[in-house]
Amino acid sequence: MSVEEMIEKMAKGARHASRALRNRGRAEKDRALLRMGALLLEKEAIIRRENQKDLVKAKDLGLNTAMMDRLTLDPKTLRSMAEGLQEVASLPDPVGQVTGMWKRPNGMRVGRVRIPLGVIGFIYESRPNVTVDAAALCLKSGNAVILKGGAEAIHSNIILGRLLDEALEEADLPHEAVQVVPTTDRRAVEVLLRLEDHVDVIIPRGGEGLIRFVTEHSRIPVLKHYKGVCHVYVDQFADNDMAAEICYNAKVQRPGVCNAMETMLVHEKIAPDFLPPMVRRFQEAGVEIRGCPRTMELIPKAQPAVAQDWPAEFLDLILAVKIVADMDEALDHIERYGSKHTEAIVTKDHERAQRFLYEVDSSVVLVNASTRFNDGNQLGLGAEIGINTSKLHAFGPMGLEELTTQKFIVYGDGQTRA
Amino acid sequence: MSVEEMIEKMAKGARHASRALRNRGRAEKDRALLRMGALLLEKEAIIRRENQKDLVKAKDLGLNTAMMDRLTLDPKTLRSMAEGLQEVASLPDPVGQVTGMWKRPNGMRVGRVRIPLGVIGFIYESRPNVTVDAAALCLKSGNAVILKGGAEAIHSNIILGRLLDEALEEADLPHEAVQVVPTTDRRAVEVLLRLEDHVDVIIPRGGEGLIRFVTEHSRIPVLKHYKGVCHVYVDQFADNDMAAEICYNAKVQRPGVCNAMETMLVHEKIAPDFLPPMVRRFQEAGVEIRGCPRTMELIPKAQPAVAQDWPAEFLDLILAVKIVADMDEALDHIERYGSKHTEAIVTKDHERAQRFLYEVDSSVVLVNASTRFNDGNQLGLGAEIGINTSKLHAFGPMGLEELTTQKFIVYGDGQTRA
Repeated sequence: MSVEEMIEKMAKGARHASRALRNRGRAEKDRALLRMGALLLEKEAIIRRENQKDLVKAKDLGLNTAMMDRLTLDPKTLRSMAEGLQEVASLPDPVGQVTGMWKRPNGMRVGRVRIPLGVIGFIYESRPNVTVDAAALCLKSGNAVILKGGAEAIHSNIILGRLLDEALEEADLPHEAVQVVPTTDRRAVEVLLRLEDHVDVIIPRGGEGLIRFVTEHSRIPVLKHYKGVCHVYVDQFADNDMAAEICYNAKVQRPGVCNAMETMLVHEKIAPDFLPPMVRRFQEAGVEIRGCPRTMELIPKAQPAVAQDWPAEFLDLILAVKIVADMDEALDHIERYGSKHTEAIVTKDHERAQRFLYEVDSSVVLVNASTRFNDGNQLGLGAEIGINTSKLHAFGPMGLEELTTQKFIVYGDGQTRA
Repeated sequence: MSVEEMIEKMAKGARHASRALRNRGRAEKDRALLRMGALLLEKEAIIRRENQKDLVKAKDLGLNTAMMDRLTLDPKTLRSMAEGLQEVASLPDPVGQVTGMWKRPNGMRVGRVRIPLGVIGFIYESRPNVTVDAAALCLKSGNAVILKGGAEAIHSNIILGRLLDEALEEADLPHEAVQVVPTTDRRAVEVLLRLEDHVDVIIPRGGEGLIRFVTEHSRIPVLKHYKGVCHVYVDQFADNDMAAEICYNAKVQRPGVCNAMETMLVHEKIAPDFLPPMVRRFQEAGVEIRGCPRTMELIPKAQPAVAQDWPAEFLDLILAVKIVADMDEALDHIERYGSKHTEAIVTKDHERAQRFLYEVDSSVVLVNASTRFNDGNQLGLGAEIGINTSKLHAFGPMGLEELTTQKFIVYGDGQTRA
């Protein structure tokens, strides 16, 4: 069977399964999730044996330590994956939820009810635990999913797919509800992206290159974020200590993630007090500062920022710093260089807080809190499959509800249109 | 200026205007809408003079009467357009609506607030009144819009665009909030569809050819429906008279629209009683019946249906009729041939009504009411810019709320992530 035939067969199977899944109750879906969690622990030996094959190959290819870490399925990772499954099982089922119902003048009752999206194509890189996370969220929300992971995790993904299949079987759910693409052939992605009749949405997760490739080649709607160029604006009326804690947390706590701060904007009135000790603290943590000319006057030992630094997603211990004359300049800077991901203001001034919240056009806008809170779990969605920085369908972190859509249901008693 | 340069300039202007519009209050937006309504009546003479140019050209090109009718801006049409503007002005403003707010264990308050999508590219055919309708809905929901109408309405669209501009000016709103593409050059559409950095969503309205062209060429997310192949299923337990009224209304009241019935499915137990008088009534109204073999046994004078009739959107006084052995067969038929647009069941049986409502995967599913109710006004959304049959963002009729998205706002008091 060619790659084309294989992917099309999988997609048709997924479409078929999605119909069967559409109205399955929460009990069966949760049973599959919990059974999968148990299998991860029961089958530890075989999972690790398959994972070992990926690790050996990765070592041969010279992957760095961080990448090897992400690829490794050790007992701790497996336990945490099993806990993740239990957590998703414990969340409410969004499917079937009636979000509103009203009566029309002609007596018809019109309601909106949550339904699954249908078939999801999930395309991702390296970490094999994502295979299980994504499968769990799609299944719980009643969607069939086709999982296309990175070549470096192929053996791990295939064995996880087999165990997912076993769990589906035991819960009496269709096999094609969750399918792992069992090939490293890159054409598989291109084929998948063309199957608009069988796949309803594509969710890519990975580096900017992957996302661009998917967006450019897909005929199917894509939910994605390219990058997070997140800003914290330290206002003239900020509490100095609070601003320092928030900025430090936003940059240093986990610099390699999309909701870490990449540029700090500082009001000129607070800069002389705030900036020198803040920069000292950053430098002690190993953060490289790239400053605007006015920052350089206050911090002569910093690196001067260049034009490419302002739109950059460093994903590293690097921070661009700009002193602004007023809030307008901060808002203009964010409008120009931001990625609509996450922006925060630190201020004690109510009016400025409100203005920032409403004028900044980002998926999550915070007052006096770290950008690191842009995360489905942290914001209270229960879990997240990713963050969307395009405005269609869902803006920001996507949880179970965001993996559904709503249809209209109408109860009439013979109404016709005049 | 080349078409490329012109469209890009318009799109950049729209992006700029969308920032200015983002937080404009309801009062200014409504003022512009009401002023535009007044201008349509004040400037009737000049509008009709420009419209006449389009009509003369259309006659030369040999457009049929129906098309000429749709193109004509007579006093009655202008009055109804002005009333439409008043209606949109009277609707609540969705922007700024906080749809939920909750407190996290760490004390942060997290809320979701409706915001405009940003810049909308609206691509449509013939009827110039759509220019004003679409502009009104986009403006009211805080979006900037670029309107690309059909070549045959170019003079009408340009003059309407000029009046819209005058109304914006008087309400102190940016000119680029509503822009009519002032050319019939077909490349304009292709250029617009590539400007993913400046345009957030494309909404096409027109025939299947236009929709396919837009979907295939767009790098920007598209909200659209290809076609409405709508079904009414007359169940074994239907009230015979009610079923007849609903089916007649769904087919005959306005056969040329997307929510008209194209296929009638009839349970075999009710068919001998229901079908012969129903078909007589249809035939008296000039409806051509294309029947399955079992229908042909009951109605020998009907046309035998061929394979292409089942997925067909006739948009005409033609009806495919199929007798089914049970509800499963009806559901399978809809799953296979339906367009996810609108489906209705007529039944007195509660369990079957519920099963149909929840198993049919269409944007609007009705019990004992005509398919013709799939319409934003009829369902109570206040107005509609179109119907979406893809599941992302909004499924079914799209009103003002569906022209917005939601962002997260977070009120903290110094929270950082551990």
